Amino acid sequence: MKLKRTHPCGILRPDHLGQEVVLCGWVLRRRDHGGVIFIDLRDRSGMVQVVFEPGTAPEAHETAHRLRPEYVLAVRGRVRRRPQGMENPKIPTGEIEVEAQELEILNPSKTPPFPLDEEVPVSEPVRLRYRYLDMRRPGGLEPFILRHRVAQAAREFLNAQGFLEIETPFLTKSTPEGARDYLVPSRLYPGKFYALPQSPQLFKQILMVAGVERYYQIVRCFRDEDLRADRQPEFTQLDLEMSFVDESEVMDLTEALVVHIFREALGVELERPFPRLTYAEALSRYGTDRPDLRFGLELYEVSSVFEGTNFKVFAEILSRGGIIKGLCAPADFSRKELDELTAFVGEFGAKGLAWIKVRPEGFQSPIVKFFEEGRLERLREIFRPEPGSTLFFVADRPEVVNEALAELRREVARRLGLLPRGKFSFCWITDFPLVEWDEEEGRFVAVHHPFTSPKEEDLPLLEEAPERVRSRAYDLVLNGVEVGGGSIRIHRKEVQERVFRLLQISEEEAREKFGFLLEALEYGAPPHGGLAFGFDRLVMLMGGYRSIREVIAFPKTQRAQCLLTGAPAEVSMAQLLELHLLPGWEKEEGGG
Amino acid sequence: MKLKRTHPCGILRPDHLGQEVVLCGWVLRRRDHGGVIFIDLRDRSGMVQVVFEPGTAPEAHETAHRLRPEYVLAVRGRVRRRPQGMENPKIPTGEIEVEAQELEILNPSKTPPFPLDEEVPVSEPVRLRYRYLDMRRPGGLEPFILRHRVAQAAREFLNAQGFLEIETPFLTKSTPEGARDYLVPSRLYPGKFYALPQSPQLFKQILMVAGVERYYQIVRCFRDEDLRADRQPEFTQLDLEMSFVDESEVMDLTEALVVHIFREALGVELERPFPRLTYAEALSRYGTDRPDLRFGLELYEVSSVFEGTNFKVFAEILSRGGIIKGLCAPADFSRKELDELTAFVGEFGAKGLAWIKVRPEGFQSPIVKFFEEGRLERLREIFRPEPGSTLFFVADRPEVVNEALAELRREVARRLGLLPRGKFSFCWITDFPLVEWDEEEGRFVAVHHPFTSPKEEDLPLLEEAPERVRSRAYDLVLNGVEVGGGSIRIHRKEVQERVFRLLQISEEEAREKFGFLLEALEYGAPPHGGLAFGFDRLVMLMGGYRSIREVIAFPKTQRAQCLLTGAPAEVSMAQLLELHLLPGWEKEEGGG
Repeated sequence: MKLKRTHPCGILRPDHLGQEVVLCGWVLRRRDHGGVIFIDLRDRSGMVQVVFEPGTAPEAHETAHRLRPEYVLAVRGRVRRRPQGMENPKIPTGEIEVEAQELEILNPSKTPPFPLDEEVPVSEPVRLRYRYLDMRRPGGLEPFILRHRVAQAAREFLNAQGFLEIETPFLTKSTPEGARDYLVPSRLYPGKFYALPQSPQLFKQILMVAGVERYYQIVRCFRDEDLRADRQPEFTQLDLEMSFVDESEVMDLTEALVVHIFREALGVELERPFPRLTYAEALSRYGTDRPDLRFGLELYEVSSVFEGTNFKVFAEILSRGGIIKGLCAPADFSRKELDELTAFVGEFGAKGLAWIKVRPEGFQSPIVKFFEEGRLERLREIFRPEPGSTLFFVADRPEVVNEALAELRREVARRLGLLPRGKFSFCWITDFPLVEWDEEEGRFVAVHHPFTSPKEEDLPLLEEAPERVRSRAYDLVLNGVEVGGGSIRIHRKEVQERVFRLLQISEEEAREKFGFLLEALEYGAPPHGGLAFGFDRLVMLMGGYRSIREVIAFPKTQRAQCLLTGAPAEVSMAQLLELHLLPGWEKEEGGG
Repeated sequence: MKLKRTHPCGILRPDHLGQEVVLCGWVLRRRDHGGVIFIDLRDRSGMVQVVFEPGTAPEAHETAHRLRPEYVLAVRGRVRRRPQGMENPKIPTGEIEVEAQELEILNPSKTPPFPLDEEVPVSEPVRLRYRYLDMRRPGGLEPFILRHRVAQAAREFLNAQGFLEIETPFLTKSTPEGARDYLVPSRLYPGKFYALPQSPQLFKQILMVAGVERYYQIVRCFRDEDLRADRQPEFTQLDLEMSFVDESEVMDLTEALVVHIFREALGVELERPFPRLTYAEALSRYGTDRPDLRFGLELYEVSSVFEGTNFKVFAEILSRGGIIKGLCAPADFSRKELDELTAFVGEFGAKGLAWIKVRPEGFQSPIVKFFEEGRLERLREIFRPEPGSTLFFVADRPEVVNEALAELRREVARRLGLLPRGKFSFCWITDFPLVEWDEEEGRFVAVHHPFTSPKEEDLPLLEEAPERVRSRAYDLVLNGVEVGGGSIRIHRKEVQERVFRLLQISEEEAREKFGFLLEALEYGAPPHGGLAFGFDRLVMLMGGYRSIREVIAFPKTQRAQCLLTGAPAEVSMAQLLELHLLPGWEKEEGGG
């Protein structure tokens, strides 16, 4: 580079008129008008028009003929006002242009596989393969600028609150999240492996025992799961832990953190406190522990309304221990829409969707005739429907009813336009059950993880009625998506041992897997708790992106491949032998 | 916890007299004086004395009898002035004490395996096994507080300079550092592996091609090396990269960054600019490309002084193409010390150490008699020695002379007390050779890495005299330790291909390993360069610690083991089979 950059392209304004500048950047477009060459030159800061005139700078003008999209340039020139009528009010530099005096082509470019100057749809595999071009498209860097801001705002807040950012190991032992570990064979110890951490859970607890009191980390985590939905083999957590606190203190601090992040990174002012719902309440009112509170459409249980009804479908379900719940949508739906919604709840196991249209003249529905006026009156009291609304009901096992109606609630909201971009509704879910029965394993398993503390007042139930024990866990939900979760942890060895017994984790297994934590609990472990955000997901929701892949610079596909580098890839037999491994895949038929 | 903490222990002062406080922390010491119990209560902020009197709070006093070191407490009490004569000026809370009213034992503790209230020497394996206790010892958290501050200061500076912090993948393909990779077997693709990155080198170059222009990351890196000296299998880099810059711009920005870090994290004001030495100059004046500039003791080549000498040892070495260099130490040394120093240089291959004592009456040495006065006069002109000094000489092959004298220089400095704690001397080393001949491999290898740009003016030599080509690399050295290194990278495909050819990297190999980067260079790669700090090493030097293990929360041993968790560990055969691997270690004899 002979020329030294003096200004970014995008900041030039009439203030700079007459100044000599050196710009660097990429050719977005080239236009030729009567022998004059116009270049839209783009860098990270924005875009500016550069003019090459044959008379002013014949050599640069000559060279400019060779420019093609995505050529990399350095240009020396003078800022001047665009001729009257040629201003472009759509871009910040639209009042000025740069009259080129000297041009240096820093690198040519082949024609990109897709145009970078407009938002044309490009398939995701092509975008990921050419991520460096994808990121050069309009708005291509925005997810990463947002992500950067979120990370800095989070740190800024936590630093001010006395948190220490401490790095925990990546080459470690299995962590207790229960997903599949990624393993790293050891060369020095034949037959031994490191595991990549599913979270820094145990290390952050150890840091509390070490007296750190307030820890955080923005940290990569690894889970070798079957990749459904929007998961990545490696993802990022904003992880924090505090000593000498209870649930409300962690939740208060987290809310303040979130408010700070939204203010600093997005300019959005959130209202505090965030609503707090118990697990039971969330399930009752929204059918899910991840309710979307951007809109109402609450569920009501109406089982008692229909007790003793002659309507066979309802009567039978109630007699089998099923329930009936409903919601009121403030809109009328066509026959076609009702059929679609019926099919929709069917995907979640509901065998039918009952509906009642609320007309000025009264309820209208094929099933109304089965119900006495008293029952209908009670529905009116419960739902208080405006005329023009529609009531929907699902009757089934509680799990089916809740899931189907929770999904219906979101689908109706979508159809009614109740999910405006830029609206952010947080809530906390608390009082989760500590354990749930796992049919397959034939034992209780932890709803969160085995280090989550039971509620003090429920401790007596731990052995006699474990399913009734509530935990000190809390989840943070944003727009119907879980973005964070945490708990107060067990800090007393005796309680930890009781929970292990309940989970049928043998003393030997506990010692082998978590022995170092159990031992640490005996040496003055303070009460502690914390929380971890799904950082990718948080940034995705903040930016309104469709997938966490949009906010990860080099994501993997749903099949865990990196289309840019081609990872995973084959290795040499020598490498394998050095790790004391033999190929097992050669004997397998077909393979993964 | 019934009691809610109101204050950290260490901040209480006479300002708080009369206030009711709730403190939480660990029992450091318990003393019993005439029925009154004194507890030194410690948390992260410091320590305060808590007094339990039988009269004031009988219940708390009773409970306090059970307290032992490292019990975790919550105490409610009132701040009062210590009785006259009982103040402790050695601690910040020494003027006051807390009269306890209520005591809650939050967790008992077993007796720790080593005392935590004094700095007794504890073996490193025990410290690592009980890292959570080690960190509770006096000063135990200091390395992590410093590390936190360094990280925040670095980010603060880089954020203000328009850098974006972008996370790069950990499950990826081999990177070009040339050390051994840690591999992660893929479950979905039998026979394929991810590699953990040795650095984000290729990704940060891709980010430059993507138009990010300024990137940084504080990022874990992985190298499965034979662990000599002070290495860790996983270590942290502060990594940065910039577009449209040359060497001096990267070095200038880095210097400003380092100055900011030292000011903010350590309160130390560094002088700028840092000295810049070429590789050739550093080797000539200090015998090494990592000179410690905290002291002088420069080397001078004196081969020409001794040309044609009758002193056989020197004459023979010179005739075989060897060289003679020397340094002047401003001190006298005893016979015993001279013997020690001779043995010392022997460790680095020097077959002898010649010395001349500078007396007021003239040179004194067993070898002086061999030299004509003219030669001695020239030595006086070169070294300008004060009376009382000692001249040292090593004659051998250039590599041996340089290494032996570089080490001697440090050893003499150590003996003369020229390495004061808290002195920080930075310098840059530039103009490295691009490649060096590798005897073993029988080819040229990159001195930095294959993506380092040659100097423009040396490009014509690339094919005809590669050993004379200088690179655009630069290393940052602090107190004789390399703490950072970087370069301007190759951004033109044609140059990259020429360098690959020089390194005998075949087109096929290049395509397979770095194909995505080569392809990216064809789509408008800007000129770019950057630098990576060894973050652990930087923090270690700043804090004056002996090993990077001191500034890593959970380090591994020299044998790559984690003594806390026991990683690496065995895994089940089911896990192995799921990864399509078979145990190779069962067939091995002995094993690693």
